[in-house]
Amino acid sequence: MKLLEERIKAEGRVKPGNILKVDSFLNHQIDVALYEEIGKEVFRLFRDAGVTKVLTIEASGIGLACAAAREFKVPALFAKKNRTKNIDGEVFAAAVESYTQGVTYTIIVSKKFLTPEDRVLIIDDFLARGQAMFGLVDIVRQAGASLAGCAIAIEKGFEEGGTKLRGMGIRVESLAIVESMDEHQIVFRTQ
Amino acid sequence: MKLLEERIKAEGRVKPGNILKVDSFLNHQIDVALYEEIGKEVFRLFRDAGVTKVLTIEASGIGLACAAAREFKVPALFAKKNRTKNIDGEVFAAAVESYTQGVTYTIIVSKKFLTPEDRVLIIDDFLARGQAMFGLVDIVRQAGASLAGCAIAIEKGFEEGGTKLRGMGIRVESLAIVESMDEHQIVFRTQ
Repeated sequence: MKLLEERIKAEGRVKPGNILKVDSFLNHQIDVALYEEIGKEVFRLFRDAGVTKVLTIEASGIGLACAAAREFKVPALFAKKNRTKNIDGEVFAAAVESYTQGVTYTIIVSKKFLTPEDRVLIIDDFLARGQAMFGLVDIVRQAGASLAGCAIAIEKGFEEGGTKLRGMGIRVESLAIVESMDEHQIVFRTQ
Repeated sequence: MKLLEERIKAEGRVKPGNILKVDSFLNHQIDVALYEEIGKEVFRLFRDAGVTKVLTIEASGIGLACAAAREFKVPALFAKKNRTKNIDGEVFAAAVESYTQGVTYTIIVSKKFLTPEDRVLIIDDFLARGQAMFGLVDIVRQAGASLAGCAIAIEKGFEEGGTKLRGMGIRVESLAIVESMDEHQIVFRTQ
């Protein structure tokens, strides 16, 4: 998606530890007009996939999930990062390892909101090692729902998450794939 | 806002500890059409207030902030709940006490995104004791920005947050104010 790549080139900042900061428009301050365009592009890609629900994980994915869900005219749903160990029987749960934060947390989704009749599109702002995605895919499977695929704003193509997910037979559509980056240059994969 | 009150009556569930569960449409699963109507109503209320930025706190406020920001055609911005103590000099920070989680956490906003030129509308899904709001108001003041007011989806009118904020001279617009509630009945304040 040209618009997103241009914005990353203009405002993205590469920080030590392979961090790509895009907090001026994507995941701290939010350009809602850009979100709307991302929602439309995700809809264009998955419009024939029979999506009944758009699933994401808090926090940065929520705005994108809403933007996409508006286009599909289906509900958005976000997995919560659970900070307690009191998991009752009414939720689907999965463990997610966070490399950047150095912790493993549990994500939960209420069983009421995912059923075998659902066809789920997962969306998130970033795909790197894929841990959050694996957790969300696990929850979709626990629910017996089917998976339409994963839509990602920015994939770090040099990390393993995208390759692994595609290797599992999952359709992954990333609107911008960063092939390589350093503080002077960000190179995108041609799609 | 009649539409929201009706939805709360139809789907809201009152749980022990004065908890109002509205997770089927507001803060876990999201009815994006309802969010759009909430965004329009918030815009109707504050359209002449000169809003330049819509500020919220992760996670449940993000979708609402995006919906409102779209109407105002300004950026949305969400405060992050910081889980480390490494606050560098580049953020505004405030402490927020969470009664439901029994912890105090720090919320942060990058200094880049709030300036004295900004006129900020704060938005959130719930207002009860007001701790999150006080933290956000504090951050707006640290930035030297002016505050257009606070827009809330559901205010618990029997908690002190709304009274305190209004007592500080802040304009607070709540789309639904719950006057009292128990497992059999939810009563709204006439507005």
